Amino acid sequence: MDHLSTTFAALADPTRRAILARLSSGECTVTELAEPFEMSMPAISKHLKVLERAGLIARGREAQWRPCRIDGAPLKEVADWVSHYRRFWEESFDRLDVYLRELQKKKKSKEKTNARNRNKR
Amino acid sequence: MDHLSTTFAALADPTRRAILARLSSGECTVTELAEPFEMSMPAISKHLKVLERAGLIARGREAQWRPCRIDGAPLKEVADWVSHYRRFWEESFDRLDVYLRELQKKKKSKEKTNARNRNKR
Repeated sequence: MDHLSTTFAALADPTRRAILARLSSGECTVTELAEPFEMSMPAISKHLKVLERAGLIARGREAQWRPCRIDGAPLKEVADWVSHYRRFWEESFDRLDVYLRELQKKKKSKEKTNARNRNKR
Repeated sequence: MDHLSTTFAALADPTRRAILARLSSGECTVTELAEPFEMSMPAISKHLKVLERAGLIARGREAQWRPCRIDGAPLKEVADWVSHYRRFWEESFDRLDVYLRELQKKKKSKEKTNARNRNKR
């Protein structure tokens, strides 16, 4: 599997993204990581291995205390990849903006017509 | 599966990302999309279905000519998600920068010492 595919596959899981979110506030051990999740240690370890293989986390060398930390490099690749598509979400917001302005305009012109009709009476 | 996981899973394939890259230069039909890939139509259709389910592409309503186009909304979610981790790749570049500056400094001070030693001889 190519590198970017491995990264996307690793991120396609809410528990693994929650692990990254936890690590974003500082490095911690596997035991500390497992605490907020109702999961067995082997299940957590499996998720950590997927993240490690994708290069998303790195682990300390000390045998007993092997703190995990985020490695930003693959996340930068994701950010670079997605940035090429920016105009596709900006365009859709532009279209929504145009639509809302048109609605507003119609509403105003309707109010004017109503006001004019009221004055005529 | 949650929405963001579905998006990441859909993006974890080089062919599907190539399809998005092709669509980024304009909407096109399934036949046009299949051309550059050495793949059968059913294989391409399967990839398109994954992209469509993730909301990454939308297809026209005309029965015969159903052009595909990118829908940017899920890509915006990816961009928003990854932006929370920006400091992790900026930090690693900062660390690299500090390291390179230190190397440079060491190199310069070594050159100075060498020059001084040469002058003493």
